[in-house]
Amino acid sequence: MDDHHHTSSPQVESQTLPADPARRRFMQGTLASTAALGSLGAASLAQAQTELKRSTINHYHIPATDQTVHWGYFSKSLTPLVEVESGDFVTIETVTHHAYDDYERMIKGDPGVESIYYWDHTRKGVNRRGAGPVDASLFGRGAGEGLGVHICTGPVAVKGAEPGDILEVRILDVQPRPCANPAYKGKSFGSNAAAWWGFHYNDMLEEPKPREVITIYEVDATGERDWAKALYNFRWVPQTDPFGVVHKTIDYPGVPVDHSKVQENWGVLKHVRIPIRPHFGVIGVAPKEADIVDSIPPSYTGGNIDNWRIGKEATMYYPVAVAGALFSVGDPHASQGDSELCGTAIECSLTGTFQLILHKQAALKGTPLESLTYPLLETRTAFLVHGFSFPNYLADLGANAQSEIYQKSSIDLALRDAFRKMRHFLMTTQRLSEDEAVSLMSVGVDFGVTQVVDGNWGIHALIKKSLFVGGEG
Amino acid sequence: MDDHHHTSSPQVESQTLPADPARRRFMQGTLASTAALGSLGAASLAQAQTELKRSTINHYHIPATDQTVHWGYFSKSLTPLVEVESGDFVTIETVTHHAYDDYERMIKGDPGVESIYYWDHTRKGVNRRGAGPVDASLFGRGAGEGLGVHICTGPVAVKGAEPGDILEVRILDVQPRPCANPAYKGKSFGSNAAAWWGFHYNDMLEEPKPREVITIYEVDATGERDWAKALYNFRWVPQTDPFGVVHKTIDYPGVPVDHSKVQENWGVLKHVRIPIRPHFGVIGVAPKEADIVDSIPPSYTGGNIDNWRIGKEATMYYPVAVAGALFSVGDPHASQGDSELCGTAIECSLTGTFQLILHKQAALKGTPLESLTYPLLETRTAFLVHGFSFPNYLADLGANAQSEIYQKSSIDLALRDAFRKMRHFLMTTQRLSEDEAVSLMSVGVDFGVTQVVDGNWGIHALIKKSLFVGGEG
Repeated sequence: MDDHHHTSSPQVESQTLPADPARRRFMQGTLASTAALGSLGAASLAQAQTELKRSTINHYHIPATDQTVHWGYFSKSLTPLVEVESGDFVTIETVTHHAYDDYERMIKGDPGVESIYYWDHTRKGVNRRGAGPVDASLFGRGAGEGLGVHICTGPVAVKGAEPGDILEVRILDVQPRPCANPAYKGKSFGSNAAAWWGFHYNDMLEEPKPREVITIYEVDATGERDWAKALYNFRWVPQTDPFGVVHKTIDYPGVPVDHSKVQENWGVLKHVRIPIRPHFGVIGVAPKEADIVDSIPPSYTGGNIDNWRIGKEATMYYPVAVAGALFSVGDPHASQGDSELCGTAIECSLTGTFQLILHKQAALKGTPLESLTYPLLETRTAFLVHGFSFPNYLADLGANAQSEIYQKSSIDLALRDAFRKMRHFLMTTQRLSEDEAVSLMSVGVDFGVTQVVDGNWGIHALIKKSLFVGGEG
Repeated sequence: MDDHHHTSSPQVESQTLPADPARRRFMQGTLASTAALGSLGAASLAQAQTELKRSTINHYHIPATDQTVHWGYFSKSLTPLVEVESGDFVTIETVTHHAYDDYERMIKGDPGVESIYYWDHTRKGVNRRGAGPVDASLFGRGAGEGLGVHICTGPVAVKGAEPGDILEVRILDVQPRPCANPAYKGKSFGSNAAAWWGFHYNDMLEEPKPREVITIYEVDATGERDWAKALYNFRWVPQTDPFGVVHKTIDYPGVPVDHSKVQENWGVLKHVRIPIRPHFGVIGVAPKEADIVDSIPPSYTGGNIDNWRIGKEATMYYPVAVAGALFSVGDPHASQGDSELCGTAIECSLTGTFQLILHKQAALKGTPLESLTYPLLETRTAFLVHGFSFPNYLADLGANAQSEIYQKSSIDLALRDAFRKMRHFLMTTQRLSEDEAVSLMSVGVDFGVTQVVDGNWGIHALIKKSLFVGGEG
């Protein structure tokens, strides 16, 4: 515990799990952000429930290491790193699964990231990567087969959470992870892979077709610059991993890219500044429908929603599906456009500070959260619902859901789901009739393309809080 | 000509066609807005071509009357109301095709609107409504059969315009049309119809299913209030038009709604304020592929794009398809959400002031507009391309295109088209490589749902101008 983590009331006690003093420097100043708690606004859905009656609130710190991440999957069977109480704070480091696209800028010198990516001819720091078989008996790509790709930090258990409850997750702060290589002090880096799962891949103009192209972006880690810039790009060429498996395409996460084999093209996107929108592509709780679940398709428990608005000052509400909720975070992005068209964002390691608040089912009666069965996003200015091709694909598609979802991607279906969810949101939280909700949706709700690259494609519907004048009075 | 329409240089001469002094009051002050011309910014695509060498620029005024509108269709065979020269201004009144949903608030006392909607047992002010047969031999609904619904004012011919040229349309001002009924002085009104062509129609919760519901909104016409509010709604019941045809659903535009037969529910959406976004749902030039073209599906010539960003200070660029371009405007909206989910926006009569600038094909070589084959939108802060299920459905779907398009609506297809157009835009206007464009689209371009109710469904892609620092230097 140190002085940075004191507030007057309630008292915050600070714990780092597991202990890793080297990571503590990222935590400084996060508590200043927690002062923003009270400013979430009168329109905040769960306002009434946030008066916590505890005198001490804990603030946990979870560094990202080979011991604290699960790679490529959610699982209700994972042992929690920590069990928090409702109201506690957790600062969680997250590491991008694209860091080995540029080892010098995204791994080197960072003990946590090095431990995760460690891979020699005998051993990987994290062996299983994905929800596939550990013996790689399907495709021979590697343990987990890359059926699921995101490095997720967690899970965090929430004491007393049970199916039927709602977990509120307030994102209080998000910071880029500074590069640990002294050559690039003060900077962070991200990778954008235009990959085989991108919307563009079978629809190219120029030769060679098809091709995968990785673009490395630079992000300012000091917070002074609010834009990212591209440094260089290179075309993916077959890469042989330390176990001897050749990866002709980007088919397994964390494969070391040998830069002696690729051609770096510098000076790309020379006059373009990408506004940064730091956020977590993957953030959510464990589903109950299967034991090991591919991290790629989003679902009712959240996960890989890939909405760039899930950043600082946003709040997510999730239906709890398993005991303890089992909250995990990963897939950090420095920026992304609505659609994530080419398959990835600017994939860049980030550290977030979260407050987890449990709403017990019994206390939900009569509240706006009573019948929430989908992940709901509240930003400072808006509410958003997330529609998917299949709202709960694991249940909707049956035993082979995890492979079939990729054959059934459709934004037409996702729009249908987003429409139904926004109608439900307006009728339950704003107590509108169906006719009122439908008219309002047509004249005052904006539907956007969240992503078309995650199997279970997404459409979000956004309504500004400022429309509800009654809600402010 | 009056003093309101003078500027120092170039001189603006004012003409009203046809003469209708009663409408002149709407024109006052529009010239102040034209001073905004120079402020479209360094990033304006066509900046270099706007130094007009003429000493006199005309400002035409086109009131909306039964003599100046074509209802429900575009046509290359229409006689232009006026022929303007490149650089001229045109103030155009537009009237919503939903005005008869509330005669007292949207028609009564307004000679222009009354002339358009006139309908007794012997005669209609405007007989043909839609691209269908004038003898109503298909469905017996009425002349034109309502295959196309929008009241369009125009066309305006542009002198010297030929296929291959680009027409730039600058929207300098947009104002609501004040209610002419003294009982509602200072107000304007709009109608939102949740209709059978809406995305929600076959997916309702409450009985009776299905149903059509019209909501009447009030808009401030004085410009002091930037939001609309709902007044009341009513369920559509069969309406008998003055020719004796019964309309069980909203199947023909301009059918008088007998309010003694509907139940008005007042106080709906009581605590909701809809931010106004005045814009033109239909705005574009005549296509060449067919003679009489249904006004509903948008296409490469624009038309019913239904993007709420096509309002004041926006600029549209269209490929010219026929001699004279034949520019028309209609389907005025006080506000709309991205998707126009239930079938309509807040349909509310508006008056717009436009400057039309012709870019001859020969002068396009080497400019960003050289290979533009789709309608491009430039706002103060962004560029947008519009993807459709079929980019030129009249050509893509062949002889039966005008009926088949409604069977083939898909936002999955529209996203494909929007992706290709944004890639083209970035590669041509910003001179990016394909790989640069694809990466940028994934990390800095937002794709949204324009509309899912116009047959040829739309997805737009938006990129902010601020990303291009080079373009500003």
